[in-house]
Amino acid sequence: MLLRYFYDEKLSHASYLVGCQATGEAMVIDPARNIEPYLDVADREGLRIVAAAETHIHADFVSGARELADRVGATLYLSDEGDEHWKYQYLDTVFHRLVKDGDTIQIGNIRLEVMHTPGHTPEHISLVLYDLPTTDKPIGIFTGDFVFVGDVGRPDLLEEAAGIKGTAVPGARQMFRSLQRFRELPDHVQVWPAHGAGSACGKALGAVPSSTVGYERLTNWALMIDDEETFVKELLADQPEPPKYFKHMKRINKEGPALLRELQALPRLYPAKEIIDRLLHEGAQIVDTRPAEKFAAAHLKGSINIPLGKSFTNWSGWLIDYDRPLYVIAGRESIDEVRAALFSIGIDNVEGYIDPGFANPFRDARLALDHYASVEPSQVKDRLGEYFVLDVRNKSERKAGHIDGAQHIMLGYLPDRLNEVPKNRPILVHCELGGRSAIAASILKAHGYEHVYNLAGGYARFKAETHAP
Amino acid sequence: MLLRYFYDEKLSHASYLVGCQATGEAMVIDPARNIEPYLDVADREGLRIVAAAETHIHADFVSGARELADRVGATLYLSDEGDEHWKYQYLDTVFHRLVKDGDTIQIGNIRLEVMHTPGHTPEHISLVLYDLPTTDKPIGIFTGDFVFVGDVGRPDLLEEAAGIKGTAVPGARQMFRSLQRFRELPDHVQVWPAHGAGSACGKALGAVPSSTVGYERLTNWALMIDDEETFVKELLADQPEPPKYFKHMKRINKEGPALLRELQALPRLYPAKEIIDRLLHEGAQIVDTRPAEKFAAAHLKGSINIPLGKSFTNWSGWLIDYDRPLYVIAGRESIDEVRAALFSIGIDNVEGYIDPGFANPFRDARLALDHYASVEPSQVKDRLGEYFVLDVRNKSERKAGHIDGAQHIMLGYLPDRLNEVPKNRPILVHCELGGRSAIAASILKAHGYEHVYNLAGGYARFKAETHAP
Amino acid sequence: MLLRYFYDEKLSHASYLVGCQATGEAMVIDPARNIEPYLDVADREGLRIVAAAETHIHADFVSGARELADRVGATLYLSDEGDEHWKYQYLDTVFHRLVKDGDTIQIGNIRLEVMHTPGHTPEHISLVLYDLPTTDKPIGIFTGDFVFVGDVGRPDLLEEAAGIKGTAVPGARQMFRSLQRFRELPDHVQVWPAHGAGSACGKALGAVPSSTVGYERLTNWALMIDDEETFVKELLADQPEPPKYFKHMKRINKEGPALLRELQALPRLYPAKEIIDRLLHEGAQIVDTRPAEKFAAAHLKGSINIPLGKSFTNWSGWLIDYDRPLYVIAGRESIDEVRAALFSIGIDNVEGYIDPGFANPFRDARLALDHYASVEPSQVKDRLGEYFVLDVRNKSERKAGHIDGAQHIMLGYLPDRLNEVPKNRPILVHCELGGRSAIAASILKAHGYEHVYNLAGGYARFKAETHAP
Amino acid sequence: MLLRYFYDEKLSHASYLVGCQATGEAMVIDPARNIEPYLDVADREGLRIVAAAETHIHADFVSGARELADRVGATLYLSDEGDEHWKYQYLDTVFHRLVKDGDTIQIGNIRLEVMHTPGHTPEHISLVLYDLPTTDKPIGIFTGDFVFVGDVGRPDLLEEAAGIKGTAVPGARQMFRSLQRFRELPDHVQVWPAHGAGSACGKALGAVPSSTVGYERLTNWALMIDDEETFVKELLADQPEPPKYFKHMKRINKEGPALLRELQALPRLYPAKEIIDRLLHEGAQIVDTRPAEKFAAAHLKGSINIPLGKSFTNWSGWLIDYDRPLYVIAGRESIDEVRAALFSIGIDNVEGYIDPGFANPFRDARLALDHYASVEPSQVKDRLGEYFVLDVRNKSERKAGHIDGAQHIMLGYLPDRLNEVPKNRPILVHCELGGRSAIAASILKAHGYEHVYNLAGGYARFKAETHAP
Repeated sequence: MLLRYFYDEKLSHASYLVGCQATGEAMVIDPARNIEPYLDVADREGLRIVAAAETHIHADFVSGARELADRVGATLYLSDEGDEHWKYQYLDTVFHRLVKDGDTIQIGNIRLEVMHTPGHTPEHISLVLYDLPTTDKPIGIFTGDFVFVGDVGRPDLLEEAAGIKGTAVPGARQMFRSLQRFRELPDHVQVWPAHGAGSACGKALGAVPSSTVGYERLTNWALMIDDEETFVKELLADQPEPPKYFKHMKRINKEGPALLRELQALPRLYPAKEIIDRLLHEGAQIVDTRPAEKFAAAHLKGSINIPLGKSFTNWSGWLIDYDRPLYVIAGRESIDEVRAALFSIGIDNVEGYIDPGFANPFRDARLALDHYASVEPSQVKDRLGEYFVLDVRNKSERKAGHIDGAQHIMLGYLPDRLNEVPKNRPILVHCELGGRSAIAASILKAHGYEHVYNLAGGYARFKAETHAP
Repeated sequence: MLLRYFYDEKLSHASYLVGCQATGEAMVIDPARNIEPYLDVADREGLRIVAAAETHIHADFVSGARELADRVGATLYLSDEGDEHWKYQYLDTVFHRLVKDGDTIQIGNIRLEVMHTPGHTPEHISLVLYDLPTTDKPIGIFTGDFVFVGDVGRPDLLEEAAGIKGTAVPGARQMFRSLQRFRELPDHVQVWPAHGAGSACGKALGAVPSSTVGYERLTNWALMIDDEETFVKELLADQPEPPKYFKHMKRINKEGPALLRELQALPRLYPAKEIIDRLLHEGAQIVDTRPAEKFAAAHLKGSINIPLGKSFTNWSGWLIDYDRPLYVIAGRESIDEVRAALFSIGIDNVEGYIDPGFANPFRDARLALDHYASVEPSQVKDRLGEYFVLDVRNKSERKAGHIDGAQHIMLGYLPDRLNEVPKNRPILVHCELGGRSAIAASILKAHGYEHVYNLAGGYARFKAETHAP
Repeated sequence: MLLRYFYDEKLSHASYLVGCQATGEAMVIDPARNIEPYLDVADREGLRIVAAAETHIHADFVSGARELADRVGATLYLSDEGDEHWKYQYLDTVFHRLVKDGDTIQIGNIRLEVMHTPGHTPEHISLVLYDLPTTDKPIGIFTGDFVFVGDVGRPDLLEEAAGIKGTAVPGARQMFRSLQRFRELPDHVQVWPAHGAGSACGKALGAVPSSTVGYERLTNWALMIDDEETFVKELLADQPEPPKYFKHMKRINKEGPALLRELQALPRLYPAKEIIDRLLHEGAQIVDTRPAEKFAAAHLKGSINIPLGKSFTNWSGWLIDYDRPLYVIAGRESIDEVRAALFSIGIDNVEGYIDPGFANPFRDARLALDHYASVEPSQVKDRLGEYFVLDVRNKSERKAGHIDGAQHIMLGYLPDRLNEVPKNRPILVHCELGGRSAIAASILKAHGYEHVYNLAGGYARFKAETHAP
Repeated sequence: MLLRYFYDEKLSHASYLVGCQATGEAMVIDPARNIEPYLDVADREGLRIVAAAETHIHADFVSGARELADRVGATLYLSDEGDEHWKYQYLDTVFHRLVKDGDTIQIGNIRLEVMHTPGHTPEHISLVLYDLPTTDKPIGIFTGDFVFVGDVGRPDLLEEAAGIKGTAVPGARQMFRSLQRFRELPDHVQVWPAHGAGSACGKALGAVPSSTVGYERLTNWALMIDDEETFVKELLADQPEPPKYFKHMKRINKEGPALLRELQALPRLYPAKEIIDRLLHEGAQIVDTRPAEKFAAAHLKGSINIPLGKSFTNWSGWLIDYDRPLYVIAGRESIDEVRAALFSIGIDNVEGYIDPGFANPFRDARLALDHYASVEPSQVKDRLGEYFVLDVRNKSERKAGHIDGAQHIMLGYLPDRLNEVPKNRPILVHCELGGRSAIAASILKAHGYEHVYNLAGGYARFKAETHAP
């Protein structure tokens, strides 16, 4: 047996390839839309990907299952649990087998047993892995968004993100019952979840890629609560804000994501005034992926700034409109990374990109440019009253301490709540370290706010320099 | 003034960017479809590409003029000479200006004067360049396919490639008259043609990128003949076989090439039996771009081999069917080069590619594979009679000497003349050095010939070892 | 806590970075000499590598511990167990702490407990990991070459590879005792070894990256034998041939590997006759890393062929002389990979490389070139008697079946046993699939054998086509 | 004949490869130290580089002639003109031939005639090229630093850069006489100089890569002056400040540059406090090559900022000490470009680099960091009196207009004239567009100036917004 771990840092998403060397067959569990890494490993290891499985209809990234069916010829194994709201709708286009609790999947000499583990979602399954030539005891379990290292999947995503009321508490109760079954597995069984630290699918995920049933029993808070009511209350408390784009994911993964080959090639545009005017006239969004310092110094009026980095996918999902044409500003060397990140959450409407060039990003002197400034805590601490102070952190950070009088609007909600930010005052925007506030500053500028200042170093530096709480 | 030279080796195609630093404006002459190099230089030099010109409707590559209009906002300057068969048909989609002999184009402080120079084609213009702030004397002339270094454009392409009869001789006479005007330019004027050595647009192009009017007068055979009849006869003699794809180019460039953004993204497929069977069932062509040795050792049954290299574009144009779906076998690291090469001659129907992987190209043991062998001259020289010897060289090479009894079918015509090659005999195929015969061997294998041998080292090695003529 | 897994496929070598996010500190366990991957992850995760540990003095790759000390400022944790033959000799050049059984290492809130686990080597330690803020129970154990997934480290390496007699059996007994301590760990504890499938440090390593104590107890053959004598016998039976370079590794890692910054930059040479003659005159080795098919078709006389791929490091270790200057033939795009692979096993004497160019690898017509041919089983099966058949497989493959009359010399020993191969007969060389025999063919050619043939598809294809045993 | 043009934008340096396809031999004229581009073209064109020539001992870049001799086996053709101060000193290590006026060099069917053309330097030669199979008339002339497009080489470099008094005027007179010989060449002869626009080897070089004798006669100011005295006066007037590093170049090229293979490999260091402290303790220079905005926001205390770009080489030559160890901050993806740029001017003392990582450049919280701010003209125009205004432009820019009361110190001289900049006042530093002043700001910070402000947009924006002269 061969097992490989894949991790997408921007999504905190883990997936797995498990293969039987004896027959040369392999299967991917919870594949990402970018299937290249699986093909590469298959090539290298002399395996053929004959199957793919999903533990559930993902809400936080676009699944690569359909892509694998199309380009590799894989059979899809998908859950047949859950009611009519949880049924895949594109199955007539792919080879597939619907599975239920107790079913088995055979890949060469490897067996996977289906275990229905609802909670995060009603149709959620886990897959218990057996390396049959070695032993008839299980070696591990692919838990998807059921059990993470140190945490369990949240049951409230749909209620929070998509506004489907009344699903959180029943989900929490299902989770409680599913965990009873998990407890019955032997201590030695390895646990391979679909997410690592940073995912919004849970609240306390560890940065260790895998665990064991025994270790989780010892350390996972969710397995240490015996009372259902306490568990439900605890599970639903203090979950982070679910990204807005989650509501799209559920739909896309259910209806079947577009195949990458159905998408257009991505042209590079030259930022001549005629071109930019045409884009803005068409109602396009322009997202500038350069570092915040570069954007602050000079940017196209009307563009917003989501710097390419670990959080790029997340903030793109929060802030990009899925329904308007999108153009990105990105160097040619990074455009593939940008596009893959956008694809990974179903932002398929990228219609062109602009390379910022070597020295001066916008050569055409006729273009409307803009800029904004950063200020140090020392420059403003004694005259905060002159500013409308805007705090764009998460609610949990806000709770732990804040600048007196600062208005709190979490970054992801800012576009919807701009009416709470006055246009006639200078705005001092901050987050914890200065990264998210740079995005916020770009949004304010794009919406016509003239005097926008980014607090360098964020609340952390402010606190250190002013002994704020 | 700033002048930059661009050269596409696979097409032997030269293009130029000329810019005025004072106003930051630039123009591209005879742009290739891949406009990235022009954008890069413009970025680096702080110039904006405001215009593009074509010296004529090219027959050997897809023009990038429309692409520049779309992505950069450039105005196109195009010939209004020639009769109704030589009119652009996509002009309603782009900003443009039609120009005639004597017109001028102004880019900042730079001036280009239009000179009608028919011969290669009826509407052909040349552009005489003036750097006005320096002097009112011309600095150079962009000659397109009119005057090359050491040669002139051939007037018989359409007659040969597209079967439009009766155009070669009148073209040659026009060329004679156009050359009289060229002679009148001052000696010091630089000559910047659209092609270098290896192009099929002429027969004796030099490998020096540019020349001068004075030097050409001294050395160019076409300028040394004073008698029109002798000139016409000489010009039409011994022109190389024009690539079959030339007939498509003329049409595409006249009707307007598709924009790159209108094309699909290119998926990577996994060579599972199901996938390959589907492709072949759809009537797809599979072109394997690996080195000939790798293809010979193992390849997909039914695929043909055009190794990626300097001649890739040329043989693709000869051998690929523009109307059937195309899949290529190419490593991920080279797929961009492959696609750009195919784009450059309008082969837009690439629907997927297969990465041959690291070690064993075709992992799926169920696939139908094939192979063929190379033989050394020493292994066969004494028993040539056992083989059907097939010579796939150009007619000029054939003329200079050949193996006794060898059948001559120039590689580009092989697919159309397979009925001249017997199926019941072992085939020994050769070219001059061994490269083209490898392509020919792959075509024979793909058409069901079983016993195919490639003569290693070609006629050159054979001749050296056997003292053949 | 954060844990990351690193795997070098060419060495089958696993290493780990474990970090404490609370303090921003991290440690690397059994680092490879190429420390870039650790630096990258540290950068991305906001961690500082403050320490590195070795489980033992490695015999199969050059350790990166000294490199980390030099370039990152890491403190080294090294075993103080074992007698005077097992003491590090470069410690005066680095910050370090020598550790013994029972010692603890603290990295932020993470603790590692040292467990002396001799057997593979006398000084071998394992490191039991505790994530203290979570629990005081262990989460996992870094076992180095003690316990692998499905196997244990072999105790006979030194005896076999370096000729140090009398160490195998005592080592096996120590291993037996060390395993008793391993058994006492809880079932849930994860097992993170230093090697995966393909390593010569054991005989049956699995392709699953990690396991658990409980699962190993159930499935690992070594933990299922209770009798010491049986265990010793079993452990020492059928171990694969230890690569010859292992003897260098032990010495290098003990004495302290050269720092990469002490090595020369690597120039690219042009294969002009003058240059090649100079190299050969200097007694240099020329290793051609191109695919076997390319080498077979044309190569520099005197060069040997080790194609770049998964086995490149292994065969380089077997076949390259550590004491003579080395030049490699490799494309510029792969030279970094080649050099890193050679560095990883201490082949530091690479003094230049030759890019094989785009079309014809060796442009200079004055060069002495050579080639060899492949033959299909069908071409030779009825006249094997004409050949000296040479089988270069491992002894275990040989045991499972062979061609009648074939002489067996495992590839790694071929250079030392050429006297067993007659010069006056055609040689037909084969392995299992055709890869290793291509290397063998190149060695024979380099030693003046004229008529060398590689059996295409190896014994596997021969057997399939002839129904050999 | 084949001719190829190579251009190094950072050095404004042109070099040429000229080859004879009939014999497969080629020669490089005025090679750069990075010889890879020549090898690539030779590979692609099937040529062997058998020779290299220098027109003179270059003062502005390190020659690649010795490198070609070593790695390719090329014979060097070098000037034997000039007195004892102008003799190469490393010739015993290479194959070479010293040439004088009237000598000829034969490469296959190509001939180069040596023409002694002193002026820029006493030993300077030009090479007149003949394509013999075509004609016995010259096709072009490689003029080195003799005649440029629109200008001629300056004769005052040594006097200015190296303080060798009394050489400028005699050089100018030699130049006058050499130009008389140039005039005698036919109009049609192409002119291929060693530099393009931006080089400090002349004052008015054009951005057109080549010219002709006829066109230069019409337009080059130096060929239009008939009176020697006027010519000398004109030639020596208004030459730009010669870069300080020119004095090193002359020496290095005369004594023989180190071979690249003699240099160390370049390690990547991790910016841990221990490492940085060690470097600074050793007296190392740390040059940060990130964009100015990034440096301004956060940088290592003591480092200076020379952003990677077109001017990187020039400012490195001005500002880096050739005698102290050098460490650079540069991303791994750009370190090769950085090192090649430094090599190109003989800065061989690069001992390590630091990758600034993905998000936060300096992870170790214990490090001493610094930053500086940019100010807009609008923020300071009414209170310039509060600042010490420092103008770091060239003298020609200064002459054309400046801010009232601004102190002028050209950037290159700033490190030597810091005593003219007061430590107790806020410094407002500016250049023309804002690029050079960012470098200046970094130098001031590194020397302990606390309150440093960079004028955003430089004098150009200031002038536009304040209507300054």
